[in-house]
Amino acid sequence: MLPEPILWTEEGLSLLDQRKLPFAVERILCGDVESIAEAIEKMVVRGAPAIGVAAAYGMALAAREGVSCYAASKRLAATRPTAVNLFWALRQMEKVFTEGEGDPFLRLLAEARRIHDEDIACNRSLGRHGQSLLPGDATVITHCNAGALATGGYGTALGVFRAAREAGKRVTVFADETRPRLQGARLTAWELVEDGFDVTVITDGMSGALMQTRPVHAVIVGADRIAANGDTANKIGTYNLAVVAARHHVPFYVAAPLSTVDMSLPDGKAIPIEERDGDEVRAVAGADVLPPSIAVWNPAFDVTPAELVTAIVTERGVLRPPYGPALASLFGGGGVAGKGASS
Amino acid sequence: MLPEPILWTEEGLSLLDQRKLPFAVERILCGDVESIAEAIEKMVVRGAPAIGVAAAYGMALAAREGVSCYAASKRLAATRPTAVNLFWALRQMEKVFTEGEGDPFLRLLAEARRIHDEDIACNRSLGRHGQSLLPGDATVITHCNAGALATGGYGTALGVFRAAREAGKRVTVFADETRPRLQGARLTAWELVEDGFDVTVITDGMSGALMQTRPVHAVIVGADRIAANGDTANKIGTYNLAVVAARHHVPFYVAAPLSTVDMSLPDGKAIPIEERDGDEVRAVAGADVLPPSIAVWNPAFDVTPAELVTAIVTERGVLRPPYGPALASLFGGGGVAGKGASS
Repeated sequence: MLPEPILWTEEGLSLLDQRKLPFAVERILCGDVESIAEAIEKMVVRGAPAIGVAAAYGMALAAREGVSCYAASKRLAATRPTAVNLFWALRQMEKVFTEGEGDPFLRLLAEARRIHDEDIACNRSLGRHGQSLLPGDATVITHCNAGALATGGYGTALGVFRAAREAGKRVTVFADETRPRLQGARLTAWELVEDGFDVTVITDGMSGALMQTRPVHAVIVGADRIAANGDTANKIGTYNLAVVAARHHVPFYVAAPLSTVDMSLPDGKAIPIEERDGDEVRAVAGADVLPPSIAVWNPAFDVTPAELVTAIVTERGVLRPPYGPALASLFGGGGVAGKGASS
Repeated sequence: MLPEPILWTEEGLSLLDQRKLPFAVERILCGDVESIAEAIEKMVVRGAPAIGVAAAYGMALAAREGVSCYAASKRLAATRPTAVNLFWALRQMEKVFTEGEGDPFLRLLAEARRIHDEDIACNRSLGRHGQSLLPGDATVITHCNAGALATGGYGTALGVFRAAREAGKRVTVFADETRPRLQGARLTAWELVEDGFDVTVITDGMSGALMQTRPVHAVIVGADRIAANGDTANKIGTYNLAVVAARHHVPFYVAAPLSTVDMSLPDGKAIPIEERDGDEVRAVAGADVLPPSIAVWNPAFDVTPAELVTAIVTERGVLRPPYGPALASLFGGGGVAGKGASS
């Protein structure tokens, strides 16, 4: 049984410490905005939607401790640059702070809870749409962790697997371990095993050999930011997986809430890519692999061009190429409650 | 300065323990055939040409200790199934044992030394041919370790880099870390830094992002077995890298001595692929990443189809597609001293 990854308590926000999984199930209590910011930076909590939810609670905590809305938003915005859900959640909280009346903490807490609940509802809706893409007995590959641990609680890519199972389908999952931080091995495999799925971990270089060896029906990944043309930033290694899937004619699906879409960016070239400390590559699970003298490159994300994306699965339905018009009509239609667009 | 990876001494064969690098430079002395077999199994020594050389010395040690040629060859052949150089070296030693006269140990030792020396000469020749493919200021990606540590002492893929430098060229190397055993990080980066190269380690999922970000002039890898049509078995992850290189129109070169070619196999589907213990994926550098309860898949090699190979660099020159006729003419010509063909 999966513990709640993000849980509001009287004392503050209780986060499952994702750095310790799968060997220790520990929680960290964040009682102020600074501890939320540090938890995001240090990846106690990670995954684009989950970062947005945690930041929203961080804004509420700031109000409780008397930190200005502006200072809190600035601090939280400086934590991680790529996931756009973070900036979307901060804008949303600023709007509620500015436009509402009554006790700021209570208003912001209510909004954070609403964002949290909506994220889960959104994932469930996304899952229902996405599961229709899978056959009754599906073998799938996923990368990194786009699960309950990456979101408010149900998952995007892994939410699709959950919804498929709820629809009576059988899903066999292969999880890329996802170097350098091994979210696929440590988080996705753990989350899916806890939830009773058949999951096998492979290293990031094995996906092609797997597709050569047995039928794979789909690759499904999450996203950290989707540009207006459908170009998708996601965890480093996603692009290689998409290229290999294309060669094998395996459909490549991006599962993400519309809050992940950044309509202000025309394409993926404009998405800022976070580079993290090289020691993430030099050490694995606390063990040194390389001495500090060896140079490493450590971009946290890559961009998969829209032409490699077979469909984008959202809470509003399954989008097919060309994504520019498909996304524009969703956002232009005004039905997305301002999500994602920076306007 | 790089220590000799394989060194014959009066006491036996001294092997650089490649499991300990880059943090400890330790040697293991193998005084009998069984210890050579175990060193190959446990990957104290690895890399297709190096395995062949070590096995040849193992046959000589067997003769010294009075183990039958048949038993020794059978034991060594059972160590690792994919690298064909092993079987080539064993056949060669059996032939010398059967056909020659005089003290078996001295004859077999002389032949092992000859195979060892020839491997290095062969690598140097291969390097000279291969370096002609690189521009004067080249950025390259390599996978696993096809260096001095994988061969008698100069390297195949890394031998090309060495030869390019000897020809006055500048080579900037990006090394895939090569999960699960991290030969790229632990061995290639160490070997190239010791040798004064500019090398940067990336995780296996970063090669595509690198090609998106900066010009890459070539991917060069070694091989464990090349089928008669040019299909190439090499360390797991090589196929993904080849697919990504093809998408970016980056030439993908296989650098391997002709002893790596198995003319008895029509194509890559017939190459036996070793599956190794899943704990290699579950732990990294001694640190646990996954509990034993999580399923993993751990093929040690994959097969890159010939259509993705821009050229095969051998000691006899650079082969271009179609490889079937190119290889047949080399082997049919009788100039390869029986190498590689199982006839």
